[in-house]
Amino acid sequence: MDDPRPLLFFDDLAVGHRFETGEHVLTEAEIIAYAREWDPQPFHLDPAAARDSMFGEFVASGWHVASLMMRLLVTSGWRVAGGLIGLQVDELVFRATRPGDVLRVVGEVLELRASRSRPDRGLARVRLAVMTHRGEPALTCTVTQIILRKPAS
Amino acid sequence: MDDPRPLLFFDDLAVGHRFETGEHVLTEAEIIAYAREWDPQPFHLDPAAARDSMFGEFVASGWHVASLMMRLLVTSGWRVAGGLIGLQVDELVFRATRPGDVLRVVGEVLELRASRSRPDRGLARVRLAVMTHRGEPALTCTVTQIILRKPAS
Repeated sequence: MDDPRPLLFFDDLAVGHRFETGEHVLTEAEIIAYAREWDPQPFHLDPAAARDSMFGEFVASGWHVASLMMRLLVTSGWRVAGGLIGLQVDELVFRATRPGDVLRVVGEVLELRASRSRPDRGLARVRLAVMTHRGEPALTCTVTQIILRKPAS
Repeated sequence: MDDPRPLLFFDDLAVGHRFETGEHVLTEAEIIAYAREWDPQPFHLDPAAARDSMFGEFVASGWHVASLMMRLLVTSGWRVAGGLIGLQVDELVFRATRPGDVLRVVGEVLELRASRSRPDRGLARVRLAVMTHRGEPALTCTVTQIILRKPAS
């Protein structure tokens, strides 16, 4: 199937370029399923146990929210040449993310730098935020990703 | 079931404290299963497509390796009071991680800071590395986590 999104090369981007993904409604069952496999701690597995934890409520694993961010970016974010390949993530901040939260990702290009050693690619530093329907961040981070340059014609 | 690991409070830790988890052998089937659910890009789904990608080989999603790191920490890392609760992650660097890699996590405490506003807890800055059996890092990061203090007796 053809992807209807325009294919963006490094050269098509500019600092300040913004994008937004589709939405995902997080369920209690999903939180528990992710936690069973990857982060089996009582406060991600059992709403009753979560009330007695430092969180004081039932919340998703931060790595679950990060994984969801990736899926939203791949399936409905921008479509960049070479694919979504991250080298480094900084300032990755996890916040309470709860069943029923409607999540979407917003992104903004902070910095662009062509590679000197590899003329076929560039580096983009991008600010990402997973936002809830209440307008609160569920996760924020800055990612440095590699994007292919437009082939010389 | 009782956990045989000693329970560590914030007060039990010191800068330089080190720990190591058990191992996990990463399989091609696991890489594909994670990618299908969370990071459905050709270079994580199909070894043939991966050879034509910027990676040039079949590799795991970086968020898969991060999720694996969390499971190794929860099931066989140190056992800290209040559970493994991360506030922020920095310098999260992803490197090529391949089928057959035998992964384990090593950690070291970089900094400890008691909370002024919440006397029942402290913050630990911890350096984490997911290492392969070849002694190469698959993922490295620095995490700031909250750990409960020993209750006054």
